[in-house]
Formats: sequence, C-alpha cells, structure tokens
Amino acid sequence: MTRLWDKGIDLNEQILNFTAGEDHQWDERLVAFDIEGSLGHLETLKCAGHLSAADADTLAHCLRAIGASHQAGEWRISLAEEDSQTAIENRLTERLGALGGRIHLGRSRNDQVLTALRLYLLAETQQLARKVRLSVAALQRLSARQGQLALPGYTHMQQAMPSSVALWAEGYASELSDDADGIAHVRRRLSKCPLGSAAGYGTPGVTLSRAVAAQFLGFDAPHEPVTAVQLSRGKAEAQLLFELHLTLNDTARLSQDLLLFYTQEFAFVRLPVAMTTGSSIMPQKRNPDVFELMRARAASSLGYLVEALGVFARLPSGYQRDLQLLKAPLFRGIDLANAVLDILPTALDGVEFCADKIRLDPSIHAAEQANRLAVTDNIPFRDAYRTIAKDLAKDL
Amino acid sequence: MTRLWDKGIDLNEQILNFTAGEDHQWDERLVAFDIEGSLGHLETLKCAGHLSAADADTLAHCLRAIGASHQAGEWRISLAEEDSQTAIENRLTERLGALGGRIHLGRSRNDQVLTALRLYLLAETQQLARKVRLSVAALQRLSARQGQLALPGYTHMQQAMPSSVALWAEGYASELSDDADGIAHVRRRLSKCPLGSAAGYGTPGVTLSRAVAAQFLGFDAPHEPVTAVQLSRGKAEAQLLFELHLTLNDTARLSQDLLLFYTQEFAFVRLPVAMTTGSSIMPQKRNPDVFELMRARAASSLGYLVEALGVFARLPSGYQRDLQLLKAPLFRGIDLANAVLDILPTALDGVEFCADKIRLDPSIHAAEQANRLAVTDNIPFRDAYRTIAKDLAKDL
Amino acid sequence: MTRLWDKGIDLNEQILNFTAGEDHQWDERLVAFDIEGSLGHLETLKCAGHLSAADADTLAHCLRAIGASHQAGEWRISLAEEDSQTAIENRLTERLGALGGRIHLGRSRNDQVLTALRLYLLAETQQLARKVRLSVAALQRLSARQGQLALPGYTHMQQAMPSSVALWAEGYASELSDDADGIAHVRRRLSKCPLGSAAGYGTPGVTLSRAVAAQFLGFDAPHEPVTAVQLSRGKAEAQLLFELHLTLNDTARLSQDLLLFYTQEFAFVRLPVAMTTGSSIMPQKRNPDVFELMRARAASSLGYLVEALGVFARLPSGYQRDLQLLKAPLFRGIDLANAVLDILPTALDGVEFCADKIRLDPSIHAAEQANRLAVTDNIPFRDAYRTIAKDLAKDL
Amino acid sequence: MTRLWDKGIDLNEQILNFTAGEDHQWDERLVAFDIEGSLGHLETLKCAGHLSAADADTLAHCLRAIGASHQAGEWRISLAEEDSQTAIENRLTERLGALGGRIHLGRSRNDQVLTALRLYLLAETQQLARKVRLSVAALQRLSARQGQLALPGYTHMQQAMPSSVALWAEGYASELSDDADGIAHVRRRLSKCPLGSAAGYGTPGVTLSRAVAAQFLGFDAPHEPVTAVQLSRGKAEAQLLFELHLTLNDTARLSQDLLLFYTQEFAFVRLPVAMTTGSSIMPQKRNPDVFELMRARAASSLGYLVEALGVFARLPSGYQRDLQLLKAPLFRGIDLANAVLDILPTALDGVEFCADKIRLDPSIHAAEQANRLAVTDNIPFRDAYRTIAKDLAKDL
Repeated sequence: MTRLWDKGIDLNEQILNFTAGEDHQWDERLVAFDIEGSLGHLETLKCAGHLSAADADTLAHCLRAIGASHQAGEWRISLAEEDSQTAIENRLTERLGALGGRIHLGRSRNDQVLTALRLYLLAETQQLARKVRLSVAALQRLSARQGQLALPGYTHMQQAMPSSVALWAEGYASELSDDADGIAHVRRRLSKCPLGSAAGYGTPGVTLSRAVAAQFLGFDAPHEPVTAVQLSRGKAEAQLLFELHLTLNDTARLSQDLLLFYTQEFAFVRLPVAMTTGSSIMPQKRNPDVFELMRARAASSLGYLVEALGVFARLPSGYQRDLQLLKAPLFRGIDLANAVLDILPTALDGVEFCADKIRLDPSIHAAEQANRLAVTDNIPFRDAYRTIAKDLAKDL
Repeated sequence: MTRLWDKGIDLNEQILNFTAGEDHQWDERLVAFDIEGSLGHLETLKCAGHLSAADADTLAHCLRAIGASHQAGEWRISLAEEDSQTAIENRLTERLGALGGRIHLGRSRNDQVLTALRLYLLAETQQLARKVRLSVAALQRLSARQGQLALPGYTHMQQAMPSSVALWAEGYASELSDDADGIAHVRRRLSKCPLGSAAGYGTPGVTLSRAVAAQFLGFDAPHEPVTAVQLSRGKAEAQLLFELHLTLNDTARLSQDLLLFYTQEFAFVRLPVAMTTGSSIMPQKRNPDVFELMRARAASSLGYLVEALGVFARLPSGYQRDLQLLKAPLFRGIDLANAVLDILPTALDGVEFCADKIRLDPSIHAAEQANRLAVTDNIPFRDAYRTIAKDLAKDL
Repeated sequence: MTRLWDKGIDLNEQILNFTAGEDHQWDERLVAFDIEGSLGHLETLKCAGHLSAADADTLAHCLRAIGASHQAGEWRISLAEEDSQTAIENRLTERLGALGGRIHLGRSRNDQVLTALRLYLLAETQQLARKVRLSVAALQRLSARQGQLALPGYTHMQQAMPSSVALWAEGYASELSDDADGIAHVRRRLSKCPLGSAAGYGTPGVTLSRAVAAQFLGFDAPHEPVTAVQLSRGKAEAQLLFELHLTLNDTARLSQDLLLFYTQEFAFVRLPVAMTTGSSIMPQKRNPDVFELMRARAASSLGYLVEALGVFARLPSGYQRDLQLLKAPLFRGIDLANAVLDILPTALDGVEFCADKIRLDPSIHAAEQANRLAVTDNIPFRDAYRTIAKDLAKDL
Repeated sequence: MTRLWDKGIDLNEQILNFTAGEDHQWDERLVAFDIEGSLGHLETLKCAGHLSAADADTLAHCLRAIGASHQAGEWRISLAEEDSQTAIENRLTERLGALGGRIHLGRSRNDQVLTALRLYLLAETQQLARKVRLSVAALQRLSARQGQLALPGYTHMQQAMPSSVALWAEGYASELSDDADGIAHVRRRLSKCPLGSAAGYGTPGVTLSRAVAAQFLGFDAPHEPVTAVQLSRGKAEAQLLFELHLTLNDTARLSQDLLLFYTQEFAFVRLPVAMTTGSSIMPQKRNPDVFELMRARAASSLGYLVEALGVFARLPSGYQRDLQLLKAPLFRGIDLANAVLDILPTALDGVEFCADKIRLDPSIHAAEQANRLAVTDNIPFRDAYRTIAKDLAKDL
C-alpha cells in the first residue's frame, strides 16, 4: 500500500498523523463521488486517444466494482492511505496492475479531490434543500391543525397586535422556504468542473478536452481558467455553510419562540412527554431539551462558517495544504444541519398550542382602533393615534 | 420637532443618546430611498381610496421637494429625530400640516425602514457588482499588457509548473467575476416588498393592496406572509456582507501575492513610487502599504459579517430593537468594499512585472516531461512519474 | 506640514485617503499618551547623552505645551498628517526648529505608536474595570432594595427551584466582578515597554538603555527582545476585546432576563416610563429598548473581537501596515463598553420587581422535599426522588 | 441501565440520539475527574453527617475501583447512559445497591459536570502551558545552534534593518512564553468550586458546607453565590480557547515565516526530507505540508472560539441544555493545540538556516547610518535621515 507521491523514503509516523489527520475518515463520504469523477476523467482520456476503448472499459468496470465494494462496507480508507484518491488508485493498481497507473495522466489530486467534493456537494445541497422543505410542510400541517387560534403578535417581546398560530407558523415556513432556495443556489458556484486544471496550471505535454468530463459529469462547464480553480476553493463551501447557518438560525429562533411559549408563565404550548427530559434532582421537571439544543446548534454553524472562511483567508494563490482543513467544518456543518432537519418535522408535529391558556391583552387592538378611526372619520392617522393613546392612558 | 411615538413625556437625554446612537448619521444615505418608499405607500393609499388623488399629489410633490432639499444638503437628520422616517414625516407635517399626518395610515416604521433599506441595497448591490467588474477589467488590461510573460506557478508556495502573467491575472479576474455575480444574486432576498406588513402583523382595520406598492417600487412581489418580513431581517444584509467578504478576500489574496512578488527576494514586480510610502527611520524604504491595507481589509469584512449575524441570532420572532444594530456593520462593510474597489483598478494599472527578474526553476517542467513520456512511450503515468523523479534525484 | 517619511514626491491623493483612512480621527485619543511616551523617550536620550539637559527640558516643555493645547481643543490631527506621531513632531518642529528633529533619534513610529497605545490602554482598562464595578454596586443596591422577594429559579427556562431577587442580582454581580478582574488582568500584556525596539530591530548605531523609558513611564519592563514587540501586536488588544465581550455578554444576558420578566406574561418587573419608548402605530406600547439594545451590543463586541483577531492572523513577522487596522475595532469596542456601562447603573436603579405578580409554581419545592425526605428518613436520595416524583404524578 | 431522571416512559430513540449527541464520547476524558469530584462531594456529605464514615469509605473505595476499571479500558460510556455522571452512578448502584443512590443528595448533574470539567481543565491548562514551553525551548536550541547568522529584518515584507536567526527565534520564543502565561492564567476562572450549587439554586432542605469539597479538591474557594455558577459557564472555556488561539496564531505566523523562507526565491531554510511530502504529478516537489497545516490550524481555533462564545450568547440565566454544546469546540480546541504543540519542537529541530543563501540588501544599513551620522555629527536625526536618503537616491 503506497501513497501516490511516495518516493521510497521512510516518513516520520508522527508527521503522517499530523498531516493526514482525520482525512481518511472524512473522505469516506467522497469515495462514491471520487469514482464518479474518475469515470469522467477516463472519458476524457479515451476521447483524447490516450486510452483505448478496451482499456477504458476495463478501468471503468474495475472502478465501479471498487465503488460497489466500498458501499458494501468491504473496505475503508486507512490512515496510511491518507485520502480517498490514494485508496482508490491503490485498489485499481492491485487489481489491474500497470493499467491502473494510466488513469492519473492529466490529472492531479488537486483537481481530482475538488471534483469529488463538488459532485458530493451538488447532491448534498439538493438533499438538504429537500429536507428544509419537509420542515416547511410540518409548519403548514401545524397551521392547518391550529392556525385559526389567536395568538398575540409581539414586537419588542411585548404584545403588539393580534396574530394567529397560522401567521406564526407560516412566517417561519416562508423563511425556511427562502433558506431552501438559498441552499439550492449554492449550485451556481458548484457547477464548474475542476477536471483538467490538474495542479492548477493545466496539463502541459498532454492535450485534453476539459469539456468532455464536464459534460459527462453534468457540470455546467469547465472552471476557467485553470488558475481560477484553486483560487475558488472555500468559496462554495463557505456559501453552503453560510446558507446552512441562516437555516439553523431560523430553526433556532423558532425554538426560542417555543421555549418562551413553553414557560409556565406563557404556557401557550404543550409538548409530548417523549420530547422532554427529566432532571436528576427535581422530580417535577419536564425539560424541552430538543428545542434548547436546536437553539444552540446555530452557534455551532456560525463557528463552522468562521472556521472555513479562516482556512483560505489571505492565502497566496495556488494550492496550499491548508485547504485540506476545509473538510472538517464543511462536513460537520452538513451533518449538523441534517441532524436538526431530521428531527424538526417530528418535533413540530408534537407541538400543541393550548387555546385555554393564550390570552391577548385588550390594548393589543389599539392600532386597529386607530386605523378604523382614521378611516371612518377620514382624519390623519396621527390624530387618530393620539386620540386612542389618550383613551388608553385614562385606563391605566 | 417631535418623535413619531412621542406621548409628551420628557425623555432622559442619556437614554436617547444610547438608544438612538449613530442612527441619525447612518440614515442619511437612506433619505432618498425612504422618500421613494413613501411614494410607493402613497400610491397604495390612493388606490385604496384612503387618500384623494389631489391629496396624494400634494404629498408626493412635497416628499420629492424634501428629498431634493436633502440632496442639496439643506438639511440633515438630527439626533433628536433619531431616524430618517421621523425626519421626513416632521418636514412633511411642517409644510403640509395635518395632511402630512395622513401618510402613516397602514404603515409602521418597521416596514417603512426596511423598504427604504431594501431599495438602497438593490441600488448598492448593482453598483458594487459593477465596480467589481471594473477591477476585472483592470486585470484583463494587465493580462493584455504583460500576459505573455512566463511566471512560475506555485503550489505549497513552491515552484510547481509553468504559468504566466495572463494565467495569474485571469485566475483572479475569473474569481472576481464570480464575486460580482454573487453580489448581484443578493437581489433574490432583497426583491420582496415589506410595505403593508406594518409592525409585522399587517394592517387590521384598513384594507390595502400590498401588490400596488410592490409593483410601483419595482419589487418582484410583496413579502408574504406579513410575519415573515421581520423574521427575514438580517438575512439579505448578512448575505451581502458574506459576498463582500468573499470579494475582499479575493482582493486580499491578490494583494498577498503582490506583496510576495514585491519582496527583494522575489522582485517580480515594480510599483510606482506614488503607490508606496516611506519609513520614519529607514530612508531607503518604499513600502507597499496600499496592498497591505487591502490584505487587511478582509479582516474587517469578516468582523462585520460576524457582527451582523450576531445581531439577529436566536432572537424571538417579531421586531426587536436589536435589529437597528444591523446598520453599522452593513454600512461599514459597503463603505469598505467601495473604498477597496475604488482604488484597486488604479493600483493594478501601476503594477509592472519585471521580465528580467522572474526566474523559473528548471525542475518546474518535470510534470510536463512525465506527461510527454507517458504519452510518447504510451506507458502508465505512474511509471513515467517514477522515471522522471529518478532523473531529478540524480541531479540533486 | 509634512509627513515624517516625505521625500518630496507628490502623493496620489486617493492613495493617501485609502492608506491614512480614519486614523487621524482615531488618533485624537492617543495624543496625550503619545506626548507622555515622547517624554519617556526624551529621558532615554538625555540619560544616554544624546541630548543635553537643557535641550531635553526645552523639548519636554514644548511637548507639554502641545499636549495642553490639544486638550484645550486648539488643534486636531489633519488627514494630511495621517497620525498623532506626525502631528506632534510637526508642531514640535514648527515651534523649536531643528531641535524638534532631534527627538526621533533611536525611535520609530512603530515603537512610538505602540507605546502611546499601551499607555492609553493601561489607563482605559483601569477605567473600564472601575465602571464595571459601578454596575456591580447597582446590582447590590437592587439586592438591598428588593432582595428578599421570592423569585422562581429557572433551569431550561422552566421553574426549577426557589430563588430570590437577591440571588438573581448577586449572581450577575458576582460575574460582573469577575469580568472587572478579567479586564484588569489585561495589564499583564500591556505592561511591557515597546520603546527602544524602534522598527522592530533595535537601534543599531546608537546606544540607548531601554530600561530608562520603561521605568519613567511606569511599565514593568522593556518588551524583550526587540523582535517580540511587533509580533505581540494585537494580542493585548484582542484580550481586552475578549474580556469586554464577556462583560457585554453578561450584561446582554441580564438584559435578556429583564426583557423576559418585562413581558405581559411574566410581568415580574416594571420599568420607569423614561426608560421605555413608544411605537409609531401602536399607541399602547411601552417598549424596553434600552435593554434590547444592551442585549444586541454583545453582537457588536463579538464582531470587533473577530475583526481584531483577523488583522494579525497569519501575518509574516515584522511590522506590517495591516496592524493599523487594529485601532478601529479596538476603539469601537472600548466606546461600546463605555456606552453600556455608563447607562447600566441608571437603568438598574429604575428596575422594580413586582411582588404582586411573581408566582412560584408549587412543584418548585419538589427537590427540597426530596432532600428533606432523604435526610429525615435517612434513605438514599434516589429513593426519595422517586417517591416525590410519584406524588407529583398523582397531582397531574 | 437507566438514566438518572428516568421516570419509566419510553423515549423516542431519535430524540435521544439528537439530545445526547456525541456527549458520551466527549465525556470519556472526564470520567477520572468526575470520580475525583464525587470523592469531594462524599467528603461534604460525611462532614455534614449525611453519610456515615463507613458508608463514605465504601462509596469512595467503589468509586476509585470504577475509575481504575475505566482507566484500564474495561468500560466505556454508552449512548444510552448519555454522560459520565450517569455511567458512574449506574456502576455505583450496580455494585453497592441502594447505598450507591445516597451520593446524589445535595448534588445535581449541573454542579457535578462543571466540577469534573474544571478539574480536567485545571490539569489540562497546566499541561498545555508546559508544552508551549517545550516549543520555546526548541526555539532557544535553534538560537543556540544558528543564532549568530545574519538575517534581514523585515517590515512591510521589505528588508528593513539587520536582524539575526537569534532575534527571529527569540522573538517567537518570547511571545510563546507569553502565550504559556496566558494559558496558565485561565486558572483564575477555573479555580472556583461549583459543588453545592446543585442545579444553580443551592440545596434547600439539606445543610452542606460548600467549603469542604472546595478545599478537598484543591479549588481556591466555592463559587459564590450559587446563581453565579451556571451564569459563568462558557467564560473560562472561552478564555482557554482564546489563549489557545493566540498561541496557535503565533505558531501559524512562525510557520508563515518559514514557508516564505522555504520558497525557492528566499531559500533561507532547508527542511529534512521526512518533514516534506511529495506531489501526485510533479516528481520534483518537496512540499512543506507540516508548516502549511500549522498555519491553517489557527483558522480552526478561531472557529472553535466563535462557536463556544455563541453557545452562551444572550441565554437567559439559569442552566440551559445549550451549554452541553460547549464541550465539542472546547475539547476540539484542546486536542488541536496538543497536536500542534506535540510536533512543533521536532519540526523546529529540523529547520536549518542556509548561511550561503541569505543575502542582506546593502541599503538595509541606512537607518544605522542615519543614527551614526546624527550621533557623530550631533545633528537632528531628521537631518541625518534626509542626508542618507539623498545618498541612497543617487545610487538608484
């Protein structure tokens, strides 16, 4: 088992641990996409005549078999292999001998890993946007269930104007839809194909059409020029983390509302027992931990965004090893969003507003009264406002 | 001169200073857009029959006059007025008496200020995207001027493969184009009209068509439902700051490259004397401060993004006064981006690559040699790689 | 009027605006400390025999006069002068001719500006710590006033165990005391004297004792070695911003508690009318803006911290112009903290807990009952806990 | 196996996964400290007479056995147990029956977990400070080895004044010493004992001396009042992350310097082959990945700091489940710092400055010449500066 750049010198084990880090674990999720990207590169090599149709078929068949075997759990990337790229090429060479070594012509790990990453992210953003819409649907179910119920509308955390469960739930549904759109729009930055940029300076000495792989893999176009590819690293990743943070901040605010409504003092909502947890010393407690943890998750997503933005801040152009550290915050952010979105619909289905406990302060209708007064008496709103304000002051 | 919500009670001056803060200064840039938004609301009131055509004309005429007078520098928002909304309504009432007070029917400062802000941001994002493209053009001029010049292409800050001034400049041009697109895409979140949402719960007691103002003002549609409007605050603002940060990070990286190229050790570029500054004790120094400060500006833009994201983090739904604090980081971020983008084309026009100093390490062609060997001998790339590596090792 | 490094070449005005930025405004607060630092450097020059006692006296006298004149508002730093250092040396030379030019021997703007900054920060941290303690005192007054009043103690925003106004107020008092200590401890990083490090590499060609100025100015010791001085820039500044953020987060959490207690649903506190503001359309509103803005301020202080940390992130060693951009977030953070701390004691003195509205849920005593049961029956707490839990379940 | 607050109702498995998260894994490192903390609480119960000396001994003995068995790898915390606290109490009750249930009297998981965490952090900060000093020692070895070697001193990335390997290495040594001190000073916030605060409101119904456990465990004092304990959560944690970030930023800047020195253009340093890695397509490459990854790590540490600060931002007072999310960024930050600090001394020992390649620009002595001229001719420095500048201009 060898590393792609191995020149036969013993590597200090400590240094391998430090440089490879957790990459072999993070890369597990990229294996399938790395194989897909490799099939795209094969197509390029075949079209350019650098690979016979028969060899290309053999390689493609073997790549698919390696992918299937990975999906079946028959192998994992080892620390010594460092990353998905090495793991796959090792297996290819094991199975096909010298032929396996033909696939790296006109390709560097730099464009290879980015291609796999973008293919993964294209799939994942679609999936995440879809999940956000499942939470939108859960809010709409809530609105259908109890939407008619009157609820105080707050500004400054003070009762301000009449609202309803429908307006509360659909306000969040609307913003979550906006978040889903935001996530889907990351596609713009993801849909440029890195293949053919190699280490960032193209493939001198070998002529390849960058359009072939781009089209084969469903990208919009090759990422041009070759020097832009490595310069762009981190931007789509950060944009996805940014949009996920907006999403998780919306679910955090929804949670904060529910935590407020769940206090004994508001008592606007009931939660199913299964969604609350107990205390180790206070036998009476039914704590709304699920919503507290959803509130807290937006802190993590902001941390990941800042971490990712820091990785490529101020770096000189050209690939730098630093960029490897984008994976951790990116993948953690995706996993975090999935965890929240997987539980939110269930959690929302359990929320029950309590008609008997919700109380609207009578003064909550003051703006409406001022509006009516202005309209019916055809007087300036400011005069109507002052009249109603004076009436209210008398009642105090 | 009164505040819109004044009920005749003396306000502690210290508290006014604390709560109004610098808002009256920040709001100066919103006055013209606030007037535009008010014209949209007038249209709504007129269409709904709450304002006669004659009154609406009088108000519109007066609003335009107030705007023109502000643009002519004849008045500024005072601390006591707090914000643009109050300043304009005060002037309207001064000039038109009771009629001035008719305009606030069916409108709250909450939807009014957000409308003005979105109109401003729609204009500003267009302007910023245009300015980014001016920097793209300057990079293309540089490429036209000296693009042919060979330059080492670096990975890991090591000479890796041959590149050129054209590839260097056009890589940045491509990414800055991408940034311009990113800035322009903020439009999606900006193009929803807040008017008619009032304080966030609509306008009970007065029937208005939200579509009228939206269309009059060029928005895509009203922002629906009314509760989504205040929930959305901060999201478009943060997205703009995010895209500006990506832009300023790209210009920071460009600057970092040039600072490296400008060292005595690289000596790849010359800068015009007017673009350098001196030292207070070292008479020989010609410091590239302009590019250092461009590199540093990306730290500020990240700070503004984090500040803006913090303002609406975890807030319960409904308008909260906290949201006022979005203006400072947002406007500072916009001003910062403008400052960098205003100077960058000039600065780039002054950069001169020095053909006589740029030296490519002979080993920089190793990848090309391996590529050629693999192609000409029709051997696996891995074998070609090892052969070239062995040759290089002999030379060491 | 000349810049210290002017060599007689016209500077592009646009570039001056970009590079000098707002520095001349920020530096206003440093003038007095810059003069103090210059007196320290004079002492060094005199002790080393590079300045006669008479010349040193003349210079010192003149520096003090320039400082007094600045304090009297007779002059301000102009944009053309760029910074406090240039402004003072210009005035010195205007008044004393060639003698004014003797002061810069063995000194660079790099060590000069950092000396002024540290002297300013040493004074400011003391002042800020003192102000935090004034808020501690206000909390103690509140505790003295209404401390006996029972208050629910919350965990998970649920009534958990009995607490009191005293416990609530003194919890915050304790943490604010801790913040005051944290601010005061920034002194450790501030108390190293930069003078004598010049541009960061000492003063070859002229022998000076770094200890003289350090002692004269009240620093603990010179900052050694000379290369550490510029490397350290940003660290003390960031630490102060970090501690100010912790402080402002504590006041934000206090505000968040009060905003909760001020809702109609809790109704635990009353606020004086002068501390609330009205709505432009809802005549009944009394909004607690002061506390909302205090809650929001912690978002700004985090932004400033991130901005400052970004400025010196990853910079190569040695002075870089980027470091100039530390001033904006640092000074904004200090001004922000002062604004909050100036108003907090007044605001706290206005808070009144309402004995008639505070209601403790009977189950809040369950933990106490379990404790007593365990003690009196001498049974394991776990058994007592289950017994009480079973009793409570019956009541539901 | 039961959860401490289990009341016999089936918990939705999905919700357990979401709420418990990775806590059972993170808590592995707290087991030994949790046992230590429990011994402290036993002491309190014994002193107060709530536990006989014999029972206390039995419990202490059993706790120590459970700890030893954990250290021997005989058990791990399961997801179902959620955390260290539950895992230990479960094992105690398994072994001792009802007696095991006596230990939770007067204690909540809230004060228990924080006690374990602080004991862990007190040990870890000492360890981390020690490790930073090992890097200081490595820099001093480098200074001893090659300190005499002249090196250009840079400002603005331009050769400015003469420096040396000693000044370069000792500048960093000094700042890393400062970082070690900064890490050690976190002790101030860690040395307050949480025990006896229970859920944050003390232990009504059972009288305990908070001083006993504090003294037994080596804390300075109990954290007073009880309500301050949960309010303080996150502050010490964030301070440690802040200081670790300063440390990692110093090592990042050191790395950035070395990456610059390692370019072909500077060529100031050589790195041992074992510390470099190869390229998958460029056979000639020897990449300095170790230093690139050290540079990048400071992005991660900033992300962790922001994440931790976000967790407790704006939270209402009293324990909230959100606080659980402090562990991930805190433990990741500690592990990250350990990884960098473990490799840095080795890496530094491998750095070799190349006397033959380092070239000082002759103009680098201009400041020294101006200094000498001012001193020998006893003229103002400004005049000497202009004379030398004029001479240099002639040479251009």
